[in-house]
Amino acid sequence: MTRWEPDARGRLALAALELYSERGYDQTTVAEIAKRAGLTERTFFRYFADKREVLFQGSDILQNRLVQGIENAAPTLSPMDAVGAALVAAAGPLEEARDFVLRRQAIVVANPELQERELIKLAVLAAALADALRRRGVPDPAASLAAEAGVAVFKVAFLRWADQAAAAADGNGGGPTLAQVIGQSLAELKAVTAAG
Amino acid sequence: MTRWEPDARGRLALAALELYSERGYDQTTVAEIAKRAGLTERTFFRYFADKREVLFQGSDILQNRLVQGIENAAPTLSPMDAVGAALVAAAGPLEEARDFVLRRQAIVVANPELQERELIKLAVLAAALADALRRRGVPDPAASLAAEAGVAVFKVAFLRWADQAAAAADGNGGGPTLAQVIGQSLAELKAVTAAG
Repeated sequence: MTRWEPDARGRLALAALELYSERGYDQTTVAEIAKRAGLTERTFFRYFADKREVLFQGSDILQNRLVQGIENAAPTLSPMDAVGAALVAAAGPLEEARDFVLRRQAIVVANPELQERELIKLAVLAAALADALRRRGVPDPAASLAAEAGVAVFKVAFLRWADQAAAAADGNGGGPTLAQVIGQSLAELKAVTAAG
Repeated sequence: MTRWEPDARGRLALAALELYSERGYDQTTVAEIAKRAGLTERTFFRYFADKREVLFQGSDILQNRLVQGIENAAPTLSPMDAVGAALVAAAGPLEEARDFVLRRQAIVVANPELQERELIKLAVLAAALADALRRRGVPDPAASLAAEAGVAVFKVAFLRWADQAAAAADGNGGGPTLAQVIGQSLAELKAVTAAG
């Protein structure tokens, strides 16, 4: 057995997703995931702290991308549009990992404990976005409100995109991209808050 | 021992809050809460399912008030302003229970598990608000976005109000009411989403 395994992380993640789908998240052990991937448990733990992290490592990556997106946003952009630009920039990698993301989403939706974890990640994300906006010089409560509104847009857009992608799965692809749905949802949030 | 205890619920809730503050939420048992209130454990369980419910029963009441607030909102109001009117209407009872609400908030903030429960309650709240808007005839994604944005406003406003109230606690009272902070925060959300 060689120490280095080609794409061990990807094989482990895929094996985990398959098993979570087939027999449920709670019923799957790390030993089974490693076996399905043709690797050892020890290799699993070189990449993931536990079986939940297979599903949530992406949340940390997403958060870093979003914070970077705000840092890179043109200084002329309003706080809300800086958040929007960061969301659109972060959508690309999710779109590329579309199959993984959609299968992961189906597993999270089926498990209340994982849904709760997702909500906590979103709250942490909102706090990180607000901090990034404050570093841009945006005062409170504008920073908190733009960050929370941005997470609301992301949440709503992501669910719409996942629903449409799942519905279009027969046709393999088709439907709008996540970046497009985020753009639409932000425009609709602006319309909703402007009316009346 | 009489079966009916004058204001048993209030005495139990207050005893629980005192003990959670003094020795921590995790370190407090139902037996201790009942004892502090001068009541039996059996009486405690007539009012609360467990020690966590002392802190979260109010979330269900708040949710009912908010849904009712949307149902009672003038038909001419935009979805966002219907949510705003519901938030302002629900703020009154929280303001009246100000001492309890602020002490509860300090306990929740000090305990990650309780904070997670609070996030879940807020997500459930957003879903209930979106349903109430759909019953008003608001289509999606406007219903989801207005509901999520409303919860964002509530979250930000509540924390601002609680901070200011805690800071003003020496002077006993003072500072803006929760309804006022909600009104300001909604106006600021509108400004944030309108700019740029």
